[in-house]
Amino acid sequence: MLAAERFFDPDPRQLSTALDLYALVRDLPIISPHGHVDPSLFSDPNQRFGNPVELLLQPDHYVLRMLYSQGISYERLLSKENPRQIWQLFAEHFYLFCGTPSGIWLTHSLEAVFDVTEKLNGESAPMIYDQIQTSLSSPAYTPRNLFNKINIEVLATTDGATDTLKHHQIIRSSGWSGRIIPTFRPDGVTNLEAPGWRENIDTLSTVSGVTISNYSSYIVALEQRRSFFRSMGATATDSAAVSPATEKLTNAEADAIFQRALHGKVTPTDAARFTANMLYEMARMSVEDGLVMQLHPGSCRNYNSKIYSQFGADRGFDIPMSTEYTHNLHPLLESFGNQPNFTLILFTLDETTYSRELATLAGAYPAVKLGPPWWFHDSWNGMRRYFDQVMETAGIYNTAGFNDDTRAFLSIPARHDVWRRAAANWLAGLLVRGVIDLSDAETLVVELAAGLAKKAYRLS
Amino acid sequence: MLAAERFFDPDPRQLSTALDLYALVRDLPIISPHGHVDPSLFSDPNQRFGNPVELLLQPDHYVLRMLYSQGISYERLLSKENPRQIWQLFAEHFYLFCGTPSGIWLTHSLEAVFDVTEKLNGESAPMIYDQIQTSLSSPAYTPRNLFNKINIEVLATTDGATDTLKHHQIIRSSGWSGRIIPTFRPDGVTNLEAPGWRENIDTLSTVSGVTISNYSSYIVALEQRRSFFRSMGATATDSAAVSPATEKLTNAEADAIFQRALHGKVTPTDAARFTANMLYEMARMSVEDGLVMQLHPGSCRNYNSKIYSQFGADRGFDIPMSTEYTHNLHPLLESFGNQPNFTLILFTLDETTYSRELATLAGAYPAVKLGPPWWFHDSWNGMRRYFDQVMETAGIYNTAGFNDDTRAFLSIPARHDVWRRAAANWLAGLLVRGVIDLSDAETLVVELAAGLAKKAYRLS
Amino acid sequence: MLAAERFFDPDPRQLSTALDLYALVRDLPIISPHGHVDPSLFSDPNQRFGNPVELLLQPDHYVLRMLYSQGISYERLLSKENPRQIWQLFAEHFYLFCGTPSGIWLTHSLEAVFDVTEKLNGESAPMIYDQIQTSLSSPAYTPRNLFNKINIEVLATTDGATDTLKHHQIIRSSGWSGRIIPTFRPDGVTNLEAPGWRENIDTLSTVSGVTISNYSSYIVALEQRRSFFRSMGATATDSAAVSPATEKLTNAEADAIFQRALHGKVTPTDAARFTANMLYEMARMSVEDGLVMQLHPGSCRNYNSKIYSQFGADRGFDIPMSTEYTHNLHPLLESFGNQPNFTLILFTLDETTYSRELATLAGAYPAVKLGPPWWFHDSWNGMRRYFDQVMETAGIYNTAGFNDDTRAFLSIPARHDVWRRAAANWLAGLLVRGVIDLSDAETLVVELAAGLAKKAYRLS
Repeated sequence: MLAAERFFDPDPRQLSTALDLYALVRDLPIISPHGHVDPSLFSDPNQRFGNPVELLLQPDHYVLRMLYSQGISYERLLSKENPRQIWQLFAEHFYLFCGTPSGIWLTHSLEAVFDVTEKLNGESAPMIYDQIQTSLSSPAYTPRNLFNKINIEVLATTDGATDTLKHHQIIRSSGWSGRIIPTFRPDGVTNLEAPGWRENIDTLSTVSGVTISNYSSYIVALEQRRSFFRSMGATATDSAAVSPATEKLTNAEADAIFQRALHGKVTPTDAARFTANMLYEMARMSVEDGLVMQLHPGSCRNYNSKIYSQFGADRGFDIPMSTEYTHNLHPLLESFGNQPNFTLILFTLDETTYSRELATLAGAYPAVKLGPPWWFHDSWNGMRRYFDQVMETAGIYNTAGFNDDTRAFLSIPARHDVWRRAAANWLAGLLVRGVIDLSDAETLVVELAAGLAKKAYRLS
Repeated sequence: MLAAERFFDPDPRQLSTALDLYALVRDLPIISPHGHVDPSLFSDPNQRFGNPVELLLQPDHYVLRMLYSQGISYERLLSKENPRQIWQLFAEHFYLFCGTPSGIWLTHSLEAVFDVTEKLNGESAPMIYDQIQTSLSSPAYTPRNLFNKINIEVLATTDGATDTLKHHQIIRSSGWSGRIIPTFRPDGVTNLEAPGWRENIDTLSTVSGVTISNYSSYIVALEQRRSFFRSMGATATDSAAVSPATEKLTNAEADAIFQRALHGKVTPTDAARFTANMLYEMARMSVEDGLVMQLHPGSCRNYNSKIYSQFGADRGFDIPMSTEYTHNLHPLLESFGNQPNFTLILFTLDETTYSRELATLAGAYPAVKLGPPWWFHDSWNGMRRYFDQVMETAGIYNTAGFNDDTRAFLSIPARHDVWRRAAANWLAGLLVRGVIDLSDAETLVVELAAGLAKKAYRLS
Repeated sequence: MLAAERFFDPDPRQLSTALDLYALVRDLPIISPHGHVDPSLFSDPNQRFGNPVELLLQPDHYVLRMLYSQGISYERLLSKENPRQIWQLFAEHFYLFCGTPSGIWLTHSLEAVFDVTEKLNGESAPMIYDQIQTSLSSPAYTPRNLFNKINIEVLATTDGATDTLKHHQIIRSSGWSGRIIPTFRPDGVTNLEAPGWRENIDTLSTVSGVTISNYSSYIVALEQRRSFFRSMGATATDSAAVSPATEKLTNAEADAIFQRALHGKVTPTDAARFTANMLYEMARMSVEDGLVMQLHPGSCRNYNSKIYSQFGADRGFDIPMSTEYTHNLHPLLESFGNQPNFTLILFTLDETTYSRELATLAGAYPAVKLGPPWWFHDSWNGMRRYFDQVMETAGIYNTAGFNDDTRAFLSIPARHDVWRRAAANWLAGLLVRGVIDLSDAETLVVELAAGLAKKAYRLS
């Protein structure tokens, strides 16, 4: 059973302050400005989730990787057969998640969404499976009804530049009140080494109505798509890249690389320079069209080629790398960093950059905001380290509140709850130490829970 | 109103211990062995500070950058017109500094120096402006009287190698009791890419009386200046550098680069190698003349060229970089690290080097001491991380106490107070955990507050 | 006098929980799967330790370096003459160790092993010297009796690939019940730049009975030695390397480098590539023979050439460097990372890799486990940072428990005690915050104290 006081520091004075602050934000609607939930869940009002394994285990790469790390094969875990057996196996190994964010999110989801208060283990597994399955059959558990129950004010999805946003169209025309907006993700057409890049360019031509024969028409097509995404409610873009390198190529250089890519003759250096150029271009377009730019660098994706070739992407083998921002972002910031109408939200998997590079950039440039702790750092300790290392130098108002960044729809409330508790606990710590006063703390806990994200993503 | 217990951990046992330890050092005279206060403030006994904006806002790049990051232009902030309007603007945005060191220092200065106990905001702004302005007109607020009120035992300034130390001369011959000493800062003549380097060399010739035509005479001139600084009370030098690379060039190599520089034909590689050579030479000279060597590497200065060209240096756009010490310092340490009469005080903006490189070097080499948390890390959390990551490996006695490193004279007592509280809190934590005993804690809190700095900088 | 509650956080609720958890593991037998104790101590049942200086000071590079850093020469400290004078000098400087792991371990050893409860300083030095010396003369203080008193279940030593394991043989045939096992350390024959590499190859030929004329026979000889070590009880190997780079050379490439090395013509690039290849080969052999592979990279050994040439290795001048694992380990992990019968235990001196690289690798690969905080990080704060930065992402069960990694036999109980306290304190913190429940905490404290190490090193 989830303790009401969970996660808070035990000092009685800090704890009671934290509880007071948390009470101010516990029930605030959720702002989810960056995530990976599938919009198709919401286009059919009668859509249902499948079984517990399909819902909670198989799409969650955090969970899969931990089981795999202890010798459980993906063949077993990802099988479409015998979900009850897979659930049993999972439950018997649920002790592996002790003290991990996955363990915390799952426990929270089970209790908050499915009223499961018993600890998941081999013994309780069958009963809990049944309890979840029964819930999933009830009309209260359609995605749309859960969206309302969870109290989501706005949910941003992530959508390829070539996406027609069909499900977003259906949702909008359905008259349903849930606000679900797309986010423009250009990586599939800006990363020359992305799988299917060549086909993606053809699709980009088709959906944009712009015949792409060279770099200039490619840029026009991208601008068309951004405009379309904006018309569908998007307020932001999202770019991933191995490195945050940015560079302005001349049109001639960019076109030469682009032509080589069209002919399948791109080199790794070409690809790296083109990506750097496209990050620069995305910033330029954002200055023009007002879409907030997000940058998520530093992950070595699909690191385990055996797993990737057998089971595809997002299977727990994206491994972070040391990441450099100061030099890499310089060209972009020289051109656009002083623009007050431009917002660049930076993320990192390399926590050493918090106090060294990111907080100092965010605390000086009007354009730069710092995104919340990302991925492996979206955890109780990750948040504590973030508050500790970022806030004194960046200032709270140069951060972008919280993102859940999840494809696991049911983990959204758990993730926001951890953040809201972490924020309340941190502010309570400052308050009992006399660094801030109660009025500051009350303002800031609401900002951290919702206000900063709304402002940074232009969602109000 | 500043709480007497501010910053201390809230556990009652630790808190009461911390208060006891803090009481031992709260009123100790301030040792300020490294900073950037302008000595001319003290040469005229009737010198007065201007208005609150000139005093507290415009010279403080920490404050300026935060306001700029939220879209307030430097044109407005740095205007010499309408200081009351600028103050109002600042006060309305003072909430941005919530939980930041700048917020803490300003609040402390306002209360401790100007008896301002009300929170600064849009409403209180005019009244506080008047209150400060009134104080500044009173004789108690001359720099010399504030120097005494603040209880400074010694204040080191930072002075270019070509400086005639005129103001230091005046202060010394004035008979005033305040101890203000210069620090030898050679960067303007050792960094071949420093603005005005060529003119600086001419000035160096003039002030040293040594005609500089080649590397050898340049070295002689530098030695002359060091000797002059020593005669004026200096006990230390200070070098900044992008990288802490050190290298012993042959005289022929050094002279070849020097000649290219004299003829305006220096390359970036030349400049980097020359700087590395000059760090090595500064160490060699320190071994000979006993001046303590300080090294402050790792800042990418004047990163924002628009701001630099319009508003000059020190405007909040010096961005830290990843910094490597182990390999870079090796040549210098091989030659001089074992010299017990040599002291090299290292600083960093890259906290990852605390436990990995700096504490291990300081905990082994007689010559190496570790300076206090620098710049963005001169903060409550920065100090906590420093104690946490440095002390177990370096040992307390291989650190150099505290530096305020500030050009904001009135922030000096606030900065030392934060450090003294941080030290008391940290030692109290060790004491209640049984790691040290009361007698150790009482000795160490005094060492951290004053003793270590005196010893490291040879100030006693 | 050592406080029973020492090191625990002072919050009363957390403290009492920590004490309860600690009580479960305080007296568990010690599992020491990685260390550097000399096995010859135990081959002669009547072996005695020498004087206090030979026992506690001179072999301990942690202690030596700290004294040296404060200007005490190694000539004095390492002298074989006048141990009482050296002890006096040490005692007068024991305040330097305040708050350091060395100070904690020494204080613990003095009290737990020698019943010395007085603080070591100049005054108490002679009395404490006598007290230790008297103990050392008593039969209870033979290494074998201390081994039993300390309650060691298994002690692994570290032994060169060419070692005949003579002392291990003697111990095994002596009928003594103490379990002391070797660990296969190949660096002396796999690092082409190791001092005496050429002679080591000759010795390898001799002890393996394989004439080594080329890379193939060299590999056969290594496999022979591993097999011999296994027959002597070894369950693990240990490799050190400057970098964790791994690479599979073709046999032709490897042989070409090997031939150059045999002829004394090896280049630094050769040596680096060969080491990378041999790390890959050690993994391949481990997959085949089941020996657990340990990797300890990132130390720049014998950094101070003056000290190295005068006083040899292990004198406190091994300085850590920034270390990269994601790219470097990729070739090895691509080949062997998915093998569930392979165990690779990774260590680091670069704490930035905990949350960024090591926890993410350990939390995904069946083969990868994370070793405990190493060397300078084997400390109270180092352990706290490790729990904080590793566990949420790696999961507790992907870590390898504790290693004391010491050559100072008498520090073993102190080191394990610090770890057990740190684990209890950390788990108590999770428990009072509602992250884990009591049953989890009780299981995990035992796992951390003993179970994980047994499993990871296949010692049960």
